[in-house]
Order: sequence, then structure tokens, then C-alpha cells
Amino acid sequence: MQDTPTLALTFLEGCQAQVDTELERLLSDSPAPSLRLQEAMSYSLLGGGKRIRPALCLAAAQAMGQDAGKALVPACAVEAIHAYSLVHDDLPAMDDDDLRRGRATVHIAFDEATAILAGDALQTCAFGWLAEAPGLSDATRLRMVSELARASGQAGMVGGQAIDLASVGKSLTIDALETMHRHKTGALIEASVRLGAMTADPASADQLERLTDYARALGLAFQVQDDLLDIEGDTEIIGKPQGSDLARDKPTYPALLGIDGARAHLTTLLHRALEQLDGFGADADPLRAIANYIVVRSH
Amino acid sequence: MQDTPTLALTFLEGCQAQVDTELERLLSDSPAPSLRLQEAMSYSLLGGGKRIRPALCLAAAQAMGQDAGKALVPACAVEAIHAYSLVHDDLPAMDDDDLRRGRATVHIAFDEATAILAGDALQTCAFGWLAEAPGLSDATRLRMVSELARASGQAGMVGGQAIDLASVGKSLTIDALETMHRHKTGALIEASVRLGAMTADPASADQLERLTDYARALGLAFQVQDDLLDIEGDTEIIGKPQGSDLARDKPTYPALLGIDGARAHLTTLLHRALEQLDGFGADADPLRAIANYIVVRSH
Repeated sequence: MQDTPTLALTFLEGCQAQVDTELERLLSDSPAPSLRLQEAMSYSLLGGGKRIRPALCLAAAQAMGQDAGKALVPACAVEAIHAYSLVHDDLPAMDDDDLRRGRATVHIAFDEATAILAGDALQTCAFGWLAEAPGLSDATRLRMVSELARASGQAGMVGGQAIDLASVGKSLTIDALETMHRHKTGALIEASVRLGAMTADPASADQLERLTDYARALGLAFQVQDDLLDIEGDTEIIGKPQGSDLARDKPTYPALLGIDGARAHLTTLLHRALEQLDGFGADADPLRAIANYIVVRSH
Repeated sequence: MQDTPTLALTFLEGCQAQVDTELERLLSDSPAPSLRLQEAMSYSLLGGGKRIRPALCLAAAQAMGQDAGKALVPACAVEAIHAYSLVHDDLPAMDDDDLRRGRATVHIAFDEATAILAGDALQTCAFGWLAEAPGLSDATRLRMVSELARASGQAGMVGGQAIDLASVGKSLTIDALETMHRHKTGALIEASVRLGAMTADPASADQLERLTDYARALGLAFQVQDDLLDIEGDTEIIGKPQGSDLARDKPTYPALLGIDGARAHLTTLLHRALEQLDGFGADADPLRAIANYIVVRSH
């Protein structure tokens, strides 16, 4: 058997290729009457990215003993939501970022109005694709639409972004920080895993609950590692422990817990995630590998 | 029997009350963790409006002999899409409007970031609500999600907004103008009627097609009347035949066809819409009344 980091990378690369091909097909299936809009959507959706959320979706299907192919369109739907949220997050009125993944952000490469519209249309795609996802029962597809809406709307991801905007420059408790992350990034990571698991029809309530707990711990771990990378990444480059989050006065785990405290929290969360997979066999190895990968990744 | 304008107004007022109550219920069912976001969503969704799209949805259900109650949640979903599109359209990077329906637009009353997020979350609501609309089969609800996604995404409403942005200051042919409006406003009006009709399960393909043709003609008529009101409304106030569309150098029907030409076009479209209802009985009276109302309305 491959060791964990290799398994994770092999699995992630395989997912990336599959998901990229499927996203391209789905996008070209329903072209916009405006070429510029179409190009902006492709630019943001097909411009790289590790596809961790789609990989979690496919891995969760596999953990439930399902053919991962049944989770391919749901995985693409989750990625479309993620892509739209990045396009809108980068806008001048939000985080005002010019660069993402080393490329100009959508409102820089195109213009602000096109970025707003491209984000809007990518969100629409997610629900349209899910409603027609092949190989699933009507009941399952509907359940997935509900799940993705709950995770990405005002009670989930968008709600988290609103909390985040209101938190800049404020000191948060660790509980308030976790509430923000559970909404802003956690809800969609949870939905990625749950949509994959729902390809098992019906998914056992117990298994679904354990995979949900796995995803919840993983989502927080992902954020703690992001906060650590923001400091340590910059440390190597600029030689001082200040990253862009600190510069923006955003609350982070290292700011609240210290670097060692944040690292210890990360380890606790990783163990909590892996524990949930105890009852699953080798089919859950990709989920285990992704969890281990997320805490050792360097970008 | 009531005369047409009275029937239309009675029907519209009844719909408005029903839809407002239901929208309020749906919104409060899934509160945001951010009060500001929640308030911005309520502000834009519950801030008045004639609710013409929901009324068309309820009227189409009635025309198919269905209990209009089955179309109430779909009607609210269409209105949430309409509301989100207005919030984003009003943004500084788009039409940059400070006022809507006599009140400050969302980015003025709140702020730009909150307006972007409120629009995003209202779109999500539409699909989440539709997936759980009561009284409909799973197959029907899925069909509605697909229909609304097609109508509102890059191949529909959002695509039309992109064409519109690219058309400012350009001279369009009448065909190009119709293409823009068929996407920008027509697609959602068509979806309003089709979602209502789909409450008949299965909806007869022939009836669905005729109601679609009704909606297509009505959507264009609505736009021609909007263009005429933009000129005539302003004429009364500022004493010269120039409205905000002209001021912005947006292409309009009166600009292309002249005022008399635009009025004649409006009459043709109205007749075309009403003709499609010939095979329907008295159940389609609200659809007839709304069509007549749309061309005589003064705002």
C-alpha cells in the first residue's frame, strides 16, 4: 500500500483531472450569450485550485462503498459554489484582492461588473447541475440541493462571510472564531463530504453522522493550518512573523492560542477527524489520507 | 364578473399579501448568524414591489386548474431571484442606483459588501425553498430547480445583464434588443409562468408550450411598456421627452421604433400573449387580466 502522503497526492491528482474535465463539459453545455461572461466563468472555475472539496466529495462516496462517479457532478457543484465565493470575496468592496493562485483576480482580469455576474452565474450552475446529476434518485438529488443551499446560504457560508467582515479589527474569543469558521469555510467542507455520502441511497444515519463529524473537525483543522501557513509562509519570505491576516487585523488561531497552541489544536482536530473513520474500512483510506495531507500541506 | 383592470388589481393585491406573508415566513425559518445580513435580506425582499412574477406563477397554476397554493413557494423562489438581481444590479459597479421603489438601495442603506452577500444569499434561498416546496412530487420540484437555474443563470437572466452592460452606448438592431430583453427580463417572467404551470403533474406539453408563448410575448410587452414609461413618466415631471435610459444611452424600443412604433409593437405583443390563452377557460382570467394590466400600468 502507498504511504499516506503519496496516497493523498495520487488521489487528489486523480480527482483534479476528473473534476476539471467534468467542469469544462458542464460549463460548455450551457453557454452564455455574452462571450465575456462565459470567459470570466471559465477563468475562475478552470483556473487551477487543488479541488480539495470535490476530492472530499468523491472520497466520501467511496467510503460509503459507492462508485465515486455518482459523486462527480455533486463534487462539481460544490466547487462551483466555492469558486463563486472566491470571486465575490476578492471584490474591492470585500477583501479587495488583486491576485489569487498567482493570477489576476476576476475583477482585475475582466472588470467588477463581470466578476459580480460571473459569481452569480456560477452559483446558479451549482444548483442547476445538482438537479440533473446522473445516477441518483430524484429524492437524493433534492436532498443534495437542500443540503448545498443550507450550507452555502445565509445560515452557512455567506453568513460566515458576513461575520468575518464584521470581525476585522475586533478581538474575538476562540468560540466566536470557531463560529465564524464553521460557517465561512466549515459548512461547505461539511457539505462536500455529506453530498458524497448521500450517493449511498439511503445513506445510513449513523455513518452520515460520523462522516459529518469528520468533516466538521477537518474543516476547523483546515482553517488552523491556513492561519499557521499565513504566518510561517511569510516568515520564510519576509523574515518576521507577520502574515496578511495579521496585517489586516483579522482574528486568527495563532493570535489567540500562540503558534504552539495552534499547532496542538491542529493535532487534536486531526485526531478527532480520524477517529470518526474508525468504523469504516479501507474504503475510507482516501478520507484518512486527505485529512493527514491537509495538516502537513505547505500551501 | 369584475372588469379586467379591477380583476387584475384584486388578483395582484391578493397575491401580494399571500406572497409577502410567505416570504417573511420562509426568511425567518433560516436566520443568518449575522443580524446585519438578515436585515439586508429582509429589506430587499420585503420592501414592497408589485410581485408581478409571483402573481404570474399563481395565475398560471390556476390556469392549469390547480390549487394556487401549490405554486406559492415556487412563486416566492422566483421573487427571491428577482430581488437578488435588483440588489446586484443597483451596485456601483453595475447600474450604480441609489434609489429603488423610493427607498435607498441596499448598498446605500447598508454597505456594498453586505449588498453583495445579501444578493448571494437570496439567490441561494430560491433554490433551497424550491427543493422543499410542499405539495409537489420530487420530480416536479427537481424540474422546477432546473427550470429556474436555466432561466436565471448565464444562459438566461445573468447572461442578459451581461449583454445589457455591453450594450450601453451602442446602437442595437431591434433583434439584438429583443435578444437582450428575452434574457435579462424575459427568461424569469417565462420561468414564473412555467413554474406555476408545472404544479399540474404532469403538465400537458401542449398547454405548457402555449403558456410559455404567452409569457414570452408578455415579457417583451412588459419591457416595451417600461421603455415607454421611462419617457412618458419623465415627460410629466421634467417636461422633456428624456428618461434615465436615454440619459444613460441605453438602447430602448422608442429609440429604435419611435414612440408610436413602440406603442404599436406593444399592442401586437399583447394580442400575441392573449391569443395563446384561447384554449383555456375562465381559469385563465387572471393571466388575461395581468396581461392587460401590464400594458396599461403607469408605474
